[in-house]
Amino acid sequence: MEPHFRRVAIIGLGLIGASLAASLKRFGLAGHIVAFDGNGVSLKEGLEMGLIDSTAISARKASQGADLVVLAVPVLAMEAVFKDIKPVLDKEGVIVTDVGSVKCVVLDAATRVLGRLPGNLVPGHPIAGSERHGVTAADPNLFAHHKIILTPRLQTDGEATRRIREMWQAMDADVVEMDPEHHDTILAQTSHLPHLLAFALIDTLSQLGDTFELFEYAAGGFRDFSRIAASDPIMWRDVFATNSAPVLEILDRYMDDLGRLRQMIASGNLDDLANVFARSKAARDHFSRIIEQREIKRKSQ
Amino acid sequence: MEPHFRRVAIIGLGLIGASLAASLKRFGLAGHIVAFDGNGVSLKEGLEMGLIDSTAISARKASQGADLVVLAVPVLAMEAVFKDIKPVLDKEGVIVTDVGSVKCVVLDAATRVLGRLPGNLVPGHPIAGSERHGVTAADPNLFAHHKIILTPRLQTDGEATRRIREMWQAMDADVVEMDPEHHDTILAQTSHLPHLLAFALIDTLSQLGDTFELFEYAAGGFRDFSRIAASDPIMWRDVFATNSAPVLEILDRYMDDLGRLRQMIASGNLDDLANVFARSKAARDHFSRIIEQREIKRKSQ
Repeated sequence: MEPHFRRVAIIGLGLIGASLAASLKRFGLAGHIVAFDGNGVSLKEGLEMGLIDSTAISARKASQGADLVVLAVPVLAMEAVFKDIKPVLDKEGVIVTDVGSVKCVVLDAATRVLGRLPGNLVPGHPIAGSERHGVTAADPNLFAHHKIILTPRLQTDGEATRRIREMWQAMDADVVEMDPEHHDTILAQTSHLPHLLAFALIDTLSQLGDTFELFEYAAGGFRDFSRIAASDPIMWRDVFATNSAPVLEILDRYMDDLGRLRQMIASGNLDDLANVFARSKAARDHFSRIIEQREIKRKSQ
Repeated sequence: MEPHFRRVAIIGLGLIGASLAASLKRFGLAGHIVAFDGNGVSLKEGLEMGLIDSTAISARKASQGADLVVLAVPVLAMEAVFKDIKPVLDKEGVIVTDVGSVKCVVLDAATRVLGRLPGNLVPGHPIAGSERHGVTAADPNLFAHHKIILTPRLQTDGEATRRIREMWQAMDADVVEMDPEHHDTILAQTSHLPHLLAFALIDTLSQLGDTFELFEYAAGGFRDFSRIAASDPIMWRDVFATNSAPVLEILDRYMDDLGRLRQMIASGNLDDLANVFARSKAARDHFSRIIEQREIKRKSQ
């Protein structure tokens, strides 16, 4: 059987790029994988680990002759890559996709560079990660049973979208489609805000005296927070830089709600406090049950 | 060999009380376990599950003839229990301990009821929990490799403290001692604040439109938060009611720090944002490594 893509170029060999390479290899989806990364050590490790077949000295060189180009760099770095690979993007038969955490900014960057939104660009975002990162954390199963959100526009080529969807599905991922604007709003609420709160918590506690003791007694809730604050700082800087409007909107609501809880504690308003906790718990339990049941159903299919 | 305690009375058969019963049974530490809980169904289930040997119709009845009384009720309910078991507390040879999440309030309640701090009261707090609760979630291994903080005062009987420490150590728990005030400050920072932030996040998101979709895309950070917001609302109301000063102090610092991050995002101050994220990540990685190494060392002993 022919591989799904003959020659795949991966631009950016971090956790996601390297895991995608590992997964393409594992499921026999790529004939040849070539990678470019600004960090030569990552490329060397990727070769040694057998994740990629060859390396290139630039994004443009990597993408030449590829039928799939995957942009796996922080979102603020996307525009420079689009500029570099512009001659390749215009060619017949090349599909470009990305794995950026914010989607409108990627579409805007491509439009700015090319003067139009290219039909062969299928914007994507795997909702998967790890507290480890870099090429050495590559995991061929990172995407299995995780959501992949594709955000094509009307101009996006349907055949290109179909082939990207099939690639992720072959990795056992759960592919959904939505508007890029909707993606950015939903992710601001479910991912970007929680990460900001976690970074802020570690930062607040780190400024106290005996930080070591704090981490030592961290089982009671803090460990979950600190795990998500282990994420890559540059990736997250870019997320907040490029999705600031939806993030600020939900952050302001959150700060208002937190301020109300503060007031209940300060004034000893115990009934209201218990009501908020019970409402949160009920919402969480309700949706957890539905999602668990669906996951059980899906796994049994 | 004699069991560590001849007759143990457990007042409050929720997750912690029932897990303690299960663990006492498993490690052969109790000759007989009698329990009281305001909820008769919990007592019936505890009997059926073989966690306890008998039930009583009040805390006082349960504690009569016991050589260990464990108070496993929400912290605001402690004072009523002290009043009820007052005649028993004064007897020779009885040790009383508790598992409350806040320690000063428990010592204060006992002092108010008895007119002095009883020497046979050993205040304790197992840093262990679960998103499940109630007697049916009982887990005999809940405390293994978890911290148990004991907060005796100078008046506390050293022999009583030693026996409580030995009981927890026999369950493979890691027992430490500190001042009750220090406990309440550390826990406000590492447990109470994170729980408040998680409850607030679920509450904020639950008030948006399509909540189901939010929970569906929750892998990216939100799931960790929502897990800790599944905790018991009454227990947590009592924590914030009885530890408000340390909680408000750290909450105010947090809200200031979060406000600064908000300002960086709003003004596009990317360098400062990346610096905060990098500092948080470095602190987190540093302490995680030390704690992991120590855990590996301990498990290999």
